Amino acid sequence: MPYSFMNDYSEGAHEKILEALVKTNREQLAPYGTDLYSDRARASIKEKIGLEDCEIHFLTGGTQTNLITITAALKPFQGVLAAESGHIHVHEAGSIEAAGHKIMALPAPEGKITAEQVEEACRLHYADGSIEHLCQPGLVYISHPTEYGTLYTKSELTALRKVCDQYGLILYCDGARLGSAIMAEGTDVSLKTMGELMDAFYIGGTKMGALSGEALVLKHPRLREGFRYMMVQRGGMPAKGRLNGIQFDVLFTDGLYEELGAYANRLAKKLREGIAALGYAFYMETVTNQIFPLLPKRVVEALSDRFTLIYWGPYDEERDIMRMCTCWATEEKMVDAFLEALKAETK
Amino acid sequence: MPYSFMNDYSEGAHEKILEALVKTNREQLAPYGTDLYSDRARASIKEKIGLEDCEIHFLTGGTQTNLITITAALKPFQGVLAAESGHIHVHEAGSIEAAGHKIMALPAPEGKITAEQVEEACRLHYADGSIEHLCQPGLVYISHPTEYGTLYTKSELTALRKVCDQYGLILYCDGARLGSAIMAEGTDVSLKTMGELMDAFYIGGTKMGALSGEALVLKHPRLREGFRYMMVQRGGMPAKGRLNGIQFDVLFTDGLYEELGAYANRLAKKLREGIAALGYAFYMETVTNQIFPLLPKRVVEALSDRFTLIYWGPYDEERDIMRMCTCWATEEKMVDAFLEALKAETK
Amino acid sequence: MPYSFMNDYSEGAHEKILEALVKTNREQLAPYGTDLYSDRARASIKEKIGLEDCEIHFLTGGTQTNLITITAALKPFQGVLAAESGHIHVHEAGSIEAAGHKIMALPAPEGKITAEQVEEACRLHYADGSIEHLCQPGLVYISHPTEYGTLYTKSELTALRKVCDQYGLILYCDGARLGSAIMAEGTDVSLKTMGELMDAFYIGGTKMGALSGEALVLKHPRLREGFRYMMVQRGGMPAKGRLNGIQFDVLFTDGLYEELGAYANRLAKKLREGIAALGYAFYMETVTNQIFPLLPKRVVEALSDRFTLIYWGPYDEERDIMRMCTCWATEEKMVDAFLEALKAETK
Amino acid sequence: MPYSFMNDYSEGAHEKILEALVKTNREQLAPYGTDLYSDRARASIKEKIGLEDCEIHFLTGGTQTNLITITAALKPFQGVLAAESGHIHVHEAGSIEAAGHKIMALPAPEGKITAEQVEEACRLHYADGSIEHLCQPGLVYISHPTEYGTLYTKSELTALRKVCDQYGLILYCDGARLGSAIMAEGTDVSLKTMGELMDAFYIGGTKMGALSGEALVLKHPRLREGFRYMMVQRGGMPAKGRLNGIQFDVLFTDGLYEELGAYANRLAKKLREGIAALGYAFYMETVTNQIFPLLPKRVVEALSDRFTLIYWGPYDEERDIMRMCTCWATEEKMVDAFLEALKAETK
Repeated sequence: MPYSFMNDYSEGAHEKILEALVKTNREQLAPYGTDLYSDRARASIKEKIGLEDCEIHFLTGGTQTNLITITAALKPFQGVLAAESGHIHVHEAGSIEAAGHKIMALPAPEGKITAEQVEEACRLHYADGSIEHLCQPGLVYISHPTEYGTLYTKSELTALRKVCDQYGLILYCDGARLGSAIMAEGTDVSLKTMGELMDAFYIGGTKMGALSGEALVLKHPRLREGFRYMMVQRGGMPAKGRLNGIQFDVLFTDGLYEELGAYANRLAKKLREGIAALGYAFYMETVTNQIFPLLPKRVVEALSDRFTLIYWGPYDEERDIMRMCTCWATEEKMVDAFLEALKAETK
Repeated sequence: MPYSFMNDYSEGAHEKILEALVKTNREQLAPYGTDLYSDRARASIKEKIGLEDCEIHFLTGGTQTNLITITAALKPFQGVLAAESGHIHVHEAGSIEAAGHKIMALPAPEGKITAEQVEEACRLHYADGSIEHLCQPGLVYISHPTEYGTLYTKSELTALRKVCDQYGLILYCDGARLGSAIMAEGTDVSLKTMGELMDAFYIGGTKMGALSGEALVLKHPRLREGFRYMMVQRGGMPAKGRLNGIQFDVLFTDGLYEELGAYANRLAKKLREGIAALGYAFYMETVTNQIFPLLPKRVVEALSDRFTLIYWGPYDEERDIMRMCTCWATEEKMVDAFLEALKAETK
Repeated sequence: MPYSFMNDYSEGAHEKILEALVKTNREQLAPYGTDLYSDRARASIKEKIGLEDCEIHFLTGGTQTNLITITAALKPFQGVLAAESGHIHVHEAGSIEAAGHKIMALPAPEGKITAEQVEEACRLHYADGSIEHLCQPGLVYISHPTEYGTLYTKSELTALRKVCDQYGLILYCDGARLGSAIMAEGTDVSLKTMGELMDAFYIGGTKMGALSGEALVLKHPRLREGFRYMMVQRGGMPAKGRLNGIQFDVLFTDGLYEELGAYANRLAKKLREGIAALGYAFYMETVTNQIFPLLPKRVVEALSDRFTLIYWGPYDEERDIMRMCTCWATEEKMVDAFLEALKAETK
Repeated sequence: MPYSFMNDYSEGAHEKILEALVKTNREQLAPYGTDLYSDRARASIKEKIGLEDCEIHFLTGGTQTNLITITAALKPFQGVLAAESGHIHVHEAGSIEAAGHKIMALPAPEGKITAEQVEEACRLHYADGSIEHLCQPGLVYISHPTEYGTLYTKSELTALRKVCDQYGLILYCDGARLGSAIMAEGTDVSLKTMGELMDAFYIGGTKMGALSGEALVLKHPRLREGFRYMMVQRGGMPAKGRLNGIQFDVLFTDGLYEELGAYANRLAKKLREGIAALGYAFYMETVTNQIFPLLPKRVVEALSDRFTLIYWGPYDEERDIMRMCTCWATEEKMVDAFLEALKAETK
């Protein structure tokens, strides 16, 4: 079997998580997220994000978290402003629309949308003579890191916050890989920044070392009203809430979450620098756990019995855009082996 | 902490499951339910249900499974015939309606609906002069065991099958506790019966010894079309499909699923017989893992610092209907202790 | 062709309406309900209901009005409390559920629900230990007159208002035949009562002498927010808003609306008294434009080539429940003819 | 009051329609579209479109018709391919998404999409490795004429038909202004072409001389199943179906529909040629009842107390794109007056 750099969900969970599951296994715990491990995880997260006045709910996956949160946030006549490349727009099978809401996609070459774009969309909306024939913007969806592994700066997020306040929009961040984002070199966006600037965001578990689970932080009052009903109604409240609770309790004990993010980033950097040193360019400059090298088809093909990468799209006649992911479980020796193999294929 | 007989999801997972999770943890596996453990579990289940021509999908919980299956089955103008006490009608926060479909509830004193009731509902529908102003029956939802722990007989299910064929209805069974049902004393309904008679049903994992997960069997072609899109769209396709796959692989190896069902049933029987021997009656006669003793408030109160039960509703001036559950993790010594304590409180 | 007493929408529109349509036909008017006739109709209605602080929108039909209003009123996890016989529950093809909301039906032998029922439903909901697994009551739907032609008293409506305030419920009245209700003998519920006690209600046009159209009154602020978006989104904002506007302008000029209600009621009374005088009983005591005589099948059959009635259901071995409607267009001479024919068939 | 060229729904209905409404007013007719005028209109339309094996339903407006048809056509995981400028995408307040379906917008500089675009979208979809994470194309939505007044050719429609067959897509045409399209100079697309090539289309009434109403033609069997339930459920089945039926009976008697389309086109042509003769260019070349002259702001302003036009968007520093509509009711003398006034303002 070739070694996979295809994604960050190929392995199970960090061993500390499994140990905790084993250790607590026969304890009788309250269901539906009301157990003590869930509560302890909530307390740890609140401290990390520097926010006491919020609700924290544990859900099973990212699409579920996005759809329940966005459904809870919007009135029936409202839609979502999001990047054209936003996960909810292109990779969740129409889940937001299935829940009744339009996504109004904005061009975003690097996966990021700007406060200016949001401002213009809102301004045009409210200036339109046929306003009630349009879909009203109600929420701004961003990802951090984005689908392209890029990052917002604190000042960009602050500008988004401001325009959202101006037009009464909910600002929501999909943090499937948030652990990688906050540990990226040079970022000025921490978990506390998220707690300060977002109306809602989720701290991804599935791609950050958990078997499953995302921790959703709800700050805005409109979102918090009746949210547990929403979770049940959309199939997002597991009877054994302990599974998510214990996992996040472990991830937020002794800095494990940050540690796993930093580990993935370090190996991604090693890959990135090693590949660049061999003369290859990148589709996108990233400092998180995803890299997008431009590789000749021949090279990818030659490596394919030892390493699998994701084909992201065509670049030019010779090269394709490839995506490589690292994660908490990536083996450093396989990174080294990949770079060596690539070197051998590079003339 | 008092010992809980409140439900069958208070503990984690059977130890064999945890062992398998630990053992396979660092294996790189394909995502989204395409891994080899999921495939092996599918093969085992197909053999057990005696059905090759079907699809098997692993979902995270019961409400999710119900809502995705029912949504996939129905046209927009169709609704569900279900027992008044059906889980989708009373305990899933309006999930089916949120997905756009009416539940047409039928009286069901023991949690079971009959072929006659379905026939009458359909006959009246198609005879109505204002037919298009009504909601068309499109699916029959049953639970086995029911919410009251009761069971259908094979002949009752066969009759339901027949009326569903007659009126073009999908027959779907919620099998959250199916392992308890098939191992119940005197039942003539096996997993093969389900495979033979249902258009779709799910084999519950969460309440039968897994950390999470339900195995959905889809037989009817209409349901199978595009089902994986549906799973993504409604947030029901975990990236780490391994979690469900490995669990069901273990449950369906060496008869573990049946073993756990039998175990829960045996302890429920012990409780039932012990309670009856002390002179108490039951709200419902059951042979599965739920029992419904009628207990004086005073007795429940007196036991409450040692044992917790679910209050199900009032019965008469002196007695309440209580629900007690056993499961794969119930300790036999606690069953004994409960019966002893009850005896002491019984004059 | 036999003369039809089957419903109150067999004829076109009151001639004054047609005259106004003809007279204004070539005037260029603003679209989407912003024309001057719509505005004048709004002003007239506001005066009649004694309410300045409200919005009035004209929609095309009753089902549309119900579904848009209820969708605008509810959060995604909320449902509707309604009579088992409520039009939205039994005769709108699952429209409310298709919009995502559960109807929680309450028994209502005469088509009316009581404040006590609403209170109990809410009390049980908020006392439930599994509250988030239930559907939260969000709106009370009543009809006035009801499906059975019965009426609420002002004190009953006041009690409903009170319990709605207590539990934060929207109180909404379907007034498809409101003109008949407010002109009924002995009623103490006027249009002003509606304006005072309801959060929203509609004044039916289609069954009260218009070609189409219902005038929806929105008082509660939550309902008013973004309502015109909702109308467009659900296909309820006609480009030629003039059609509804002109019709309601005519209906609310010189008391025409009341006049037509009174006319229908007078003929219904004549029918009711005439039928009673022949010794027939009624399924329901009504003072509005619907009556429900219990007639032998033989008699209905014997009259059927001259008069058509609606078969409402079986009563006993000999008699069926029949429904007869009068309306603004019912011919008095046909009422007389019917009574004479019935007399001839009555031994 | 200035004379309005803003749209084609400023006046009431063609006088023949009003006459028919008056003449039939007191006839007792069957409700819900089952009356004899509706049936006669259906027969006339079937003849005109050269199609016997289809269903024809009368709905009240375009948005309603689009949303009910598209909802009936699609499975829950399917979406719509449409032009970026498509009415359902930009001017129906998110109605399709509110009904659960994504619109996948395709660039369409002249409002038209091509078979190649549809083919590519489908090919990419079915070639994608993450197919179930995408929204499956299920229906192609076109408008004829488009939002820009442009027209498809028969060969373009035939190519669309072919690619739809290849990928199992429903081909649906919004014909709000279809009467103008089929009467346009040089078109080779007739009503029969529509009947031949579309799975479903509607023949617009509201913008073609009716007070309200669209005639929906359903050819594809999947769409026809249970469609009347859908109409009720979404509030699209008026009790007094006579209103639509009588109108379409008149429109499809003695060629009135075509006559009104030709009339509107003739006056649009007169305007277009007159404006061009004064040296003005157009944003879009059109042969239907909408024209898009590029006019200096100063000129529009100068004319505004005598004529109102729609501002469509900016063009360059001096000129705006304006939209002017003609219709069955446009007065030729006002066309002449406009051209004269424009000439006076043109140096």
